[in-house]
Amino acid sequence: MHAVSPVEDSTVETPVGVPVRDLRRVHIHPDYWYPLAWSHEVKRGKAHGVRFAGEPIVLVRTESGNVFALEDRCAHRQVPLHGGVVDGEAIRCCYHGWTYDCTGRCVDVPYLGRERLPNGVRAYPCREVEGLIFVFPGNAELAASTPLPPLGSVANHAYKTRRFGREVACHYSFMHENLMDMNHQFLHRRQMGQMRARSLGRRRGDDWVEVDYTFSREAGQQPIGEALVFGQSRQGQKQHKDVMTIRTQYPYQTLQIRTSDGTLVMDLWIIYVPLDAEQRTNRTFGLLSVKRPKLGVLLDVAWPLLVWFTERIFKEDRWIVEREQEAHDAQGADWNHEVFPVINELRDLLRTCGAPPTRRVVPIAPEPAAQSCMS
Amino acid sequence: MHAVSPVEDSTVETPVGVPVRDLRRVHIHPDYWYPLAWSHEVKRGKAHGVRFAGEPIVLVRTESGNVFALEDRCAHRQVPLHGGVVDGEAIRCCYHGWTYDCTGRCVDVPYLGRERLPNGVRAYPCREVEGLIFVFPGNAELAASTPLPPLGSVANHAYKTRRFGREVACHYSFMHENLMDMNHQFLHRRQMGQMRARSLGRRRGDDWVEVDYTFSREAGQQPIGEALVFGQSRQGQKQHKDVMTIRTQYPYQTLQIRTSDGTLVMDLWIIYVPLDAEQRTNRTFGLLSVKRPKLGVLLDVAWPLLVWFTERIFKEDRWIVEREQEAHDAQGADWNHEVFPVINELRDLLRTCGAPPTRRVVPIAPEPAAQSCMS
Amino acid sequence: MHAVSPVEDSTVETPVGVPVRDLRRVHIHPDYWYPLAWSHEVKRGKAHGVRFAGEPIVLVRTESGNVFALEDRCAHRQVPLHGGVVDGEAIRCCYHGWTYDCTGRCVDVPYLGRERLPNGVRAYPCREVEGLIFVFPGNAELAASTPLPPLGSVANHAYKTRRFGREVACHYSFMHENLMDMNHQFLHRRQMGQMRARSLGRRRGDDWVEVDYTFSREAGQQPIGEALVFGQSRQGQKQHKDVMTIRTQYPYQTLQIRTSDGTLVMDLWIIYVPLDAEQRTNRTFGLLSVKRPKLGVLLDVAWPLLVWFTERIFKEDRWIVEREQEAHDAQGADWNHEVFPVINELRDLLRTCGAPPTRRVVPIAPEPAAQSCMS
Repeated sequence: MHAVSPVEDSTVETPVGVPVRDLRRVHIHPDYWYPLAWSHEVKRGKAHGVRFAGEPIVLVRTESGNVFALEDRCAHRQVPLHGGVVDGEAIRCCYHGWTYDCTGRCVDVPYLGRERLPNGVRAYPCREVEGLIFVFPGNAELAASTPLPPLGSVANHAYKTRRFGREVACHYSFMHENLMDMNHQFLHRRQMGQMRARSLGRRRGDDWVEVDYTFSREAGQQPIGEALVFGQSRQGQKQHKDVMTIRTQYPYQTLQIRTSDGTLVMDLWIIYVPLDAEQRTNRTFGLLSVKRPKLGVLLDVAWPLLVWFTERIFKEDRWIVEREQEAHDAQGADWNHEVFPVINELRDLLRTCGAPPTRRVVPIAPEPAAQSCMS
Repeated sequence: MHAVSPVEDSTVETPVGVPVRDLRRVHIHPDYWYPLAWSHEVKRGKAHGVRFAGEPIVLVRTESGNVFALEDRCAHRQVPLHGGVVDGEAIRCCYHGWTYDCTGRCVDVPYLGRERLPNGVRAYPCREVEGLIFVFPGNAELAASTPLPPLGSVANHAYKTRRFGREVACHYSFMHENLMDMNHQFLHRRQMGQMRARSLGRRRGDDWVEVDYTFSREAGQQPIGEALVFGQSRQGQKQHKDVMTIRTQYPYQTLQIRTSDGTLVMDLWIIYVPLDAEQRTNRTFGLLSVKRPKLGVLLDVAWPLLVWFTERIFKEDRWIVEREQEAHDAQGADWNHEVFPVINELRDLLRTCGAPPTRRVVPIAPEPAAQSCMS
Repeated sequence: MHAVSPVEDSTVETPVGVPVRDLRRVHIHPDYWYPLAWSHEVKRGKAHGVRFAGEPIVLVRTESGNVFALEDRCAHRQVPLHGGVVDGEAIRCCYHGWTYDCTGRCVDVPYLGRERLPNGVRAYPCREVEGLIFVFPGNAELAASTPLPPLGSVANHAYKTRRFGREVACHYSFMHENLMDMNHQFLHRRQMGQMRARSLGRRRGDDWVEVDYTFSREAGQQPIGEALVFGQSRQGQKQHKDVMTIRTQYPYQTLQIRTSDGTLVMDLWIIYVPLDAEQRTNRTFGLLSVKRPKLGVLLDVAWPLLVWFTERIFKEDRWIVEREQEAHDAQGADWNHEVFPVINELRDLLRTCGAPPTRRVVPIAPEPAAQSCMS
């Protein structure tokens, strides 16, 4: 019942006769590091249940403070280990007390002899950095050779960083497209006034695509919140000289704003982690770093305003991408009719870098014995 | 697990060997005018999202006060247009500002040249009358030759009209059968006392069926609310002389009460519009017109009582038809064992006049160019 | 994505090549007496709707106080009879007043002659004993020859009985396994302290399996609630001499505690009645009988504490078995890796005694005419 042909824009070249995969059904590639929790969510001596693309995973912080990640199920009766009890450097299932160490090995069943211990559960490579707990959900043998992503300017004391995020009920691809297409400023007209984005050009590599923008104000005043996010206010200038660069470096995304003298005034790193098996929900983890002005305390004073402003923007974006997912659910296919070239590049990238169409079969076998607890 | 054969009553003649369609899966025929909203729900300069049988439709009242109806999705990213902004006589999508006129044509994409405008969305014929906004959801070419239904006595000043309705979680056919089978007075025994309906006879045409009743009171007093609905109280008379005629004129239904001198004292027009694609919910729109007595102010004074009375009756009917739908869902088929001839006629009519079993395929093509905004 | 082979423990011998049925999909056998309500839930002159494995059943207490059970649907329009009106010894449907007696026969349709009465609905054998209303949902011809189960010590005045129960969102087999595997005391460590169960041995018959335990306290004090349940406090004894026997006598379960002199101090009878067609929820009915001490009033005074204690235990058990069901739903198969021999015996018993894999087809036919109202 729609009058528009749902074919892809011709800027995406596809071999004749090869149907394009429905982007909203492309699963994220698991052979990357994904943050699954903030550090503060996993308290010492506690277990915390999370999900990656439908897989239940338990994050355990031992009494010594280390964090490890296992399948979130007891090998015995499949109940979640996150309901269990941390015992030293191990996790004990709450039901019959079966106990697992950081490699997933079962090290105690209270009513069985040590010589009769059953198999354990899968362990995931796990690292903690800058307040985020990263897990490698794919092929564990690739974890050591796969670097953690650079996290923008979060480690640079010249910047102040806001950590934010929330669950959003949509496929991660909608999030990438939302941020990269700055023509959607119309959505934020109540927050931002009427801003017009102008694309300066795009670049593409094997696993990344990026685009530059400048902005001009069509009507209205620059809000204070925006001035804070963009680093400084330049009222009176009709044409900003700042350049915004948005990049998807699979599977992560960044947004950077540089002034005409090349100073990086805003640096955002963000990732959308699928939660359910169909990947129609994601949890967003964002690190928004703003360069401190010379009188650094001003930024601290204005921080609550920046928080409020970004929350309102994020709320509008969340609302619209959830409507996109709803439409896809109702239409049963990708009717998207994209006309903006960089977004078509991005869509092609997300298809190409995503997981292959068939689900990988994980062999039923014990984990590699070489894995130690301190990954 | 049921002991009763679910075959049709033999009063419905069917060719041997041709299975009868499950009435509860017969879709309403789309080539009629259906009210999708009350006028007051679509405010000037605003958009309002509704549904017909699973199709999302946006009703837009422009700044000049006209109403038009489009598919409720932007051709670009499929988000609902009802979240958008009315701009003069057009609707602008809230996300990237794509703009559509009353014919569904895309007339502006803020970041594209006018020569590159993409296809638009489907428009629906739309008319506003007597506080109802009617849409023609089927083949638009038939709209001009299909008259709007007569709406009872709503335009007659000798009558006072109550507009009512609500969502009901059942197939529209249960609603038709509920109203037409006046033997269900037992359901309203707490509101109406013990009334016995006597069927005087039925008539049938190609697209209609109707039945006449008289009523006698078996026990209890006539409630004041009923007296108001029935136009006047005639306490002391064991046998009413009033005749009630209930008619399904596909897809609408009417109920009229006439006194022995032929005066029409009550005139109800009602329609049950399917909301979801499976048509297991409907929105009821009803116009209940009551003839004003000589001292017309009496009716106005008593009006709140009439509202209260009809609401209670409607609530009981709603409860029971939702139980019927639940039973159908659980049983997975129509086990209905009807013994009342007019209801079997009605069931046959609703099957015959309903949409054909296979869904019509709507061609992917622009709307007829001849359609103007003032339909 | 799990590292443990989901095959059955080898203690269950199965013919080579014959796959073991997924226990969580084995339906309970309907040819037994099941309690479907407490007596106080079915008030005189009222009807009460219940479910057995997805079948809606109405329990009717007539004006004379008898209880009968019918399919909970009117033969006419399939609405639930439990919304109807008890009329003497019959139930009248609330919609059009069709009336059924205790055998399910339709005895009145107000607008039809008696000679034209349609078929009725299915009746279920029904008995009321010790505050429970039992129904025989299977082949009614077997009801007379199938005894009601013995209900522990509920009829013995030397015991005080607590009736309890609740809906639990899991397959009944999880309930049997939970109670029979006393190694799950770890789950109740906060209520019970650290108790260790020791299995003394197990016995097995065609339709039953049972196991004996003794308990020793590893740490902590005996809670007062536990002392009450176990009949008496024996603080200072590190090793209890009491023996607990847990038995599944298909489809019922009992738990008895005897002191060293053979006195039965606690006697629990319990059953888990499937509610939905897939049998993934159950309603538990339990009778917990505690032997009165010589000064019987002490038990009455302490009763609220016993109630509180057992409620907390039951709440923990309910939580964990619902997590087991959730895991089964997510995994789509029975990954259970049981190592405790008696539980594997129990699992085998529940498979063997359960309903055959294919659903029985109930012929569409009137009930045996010989059935009278006083079953």
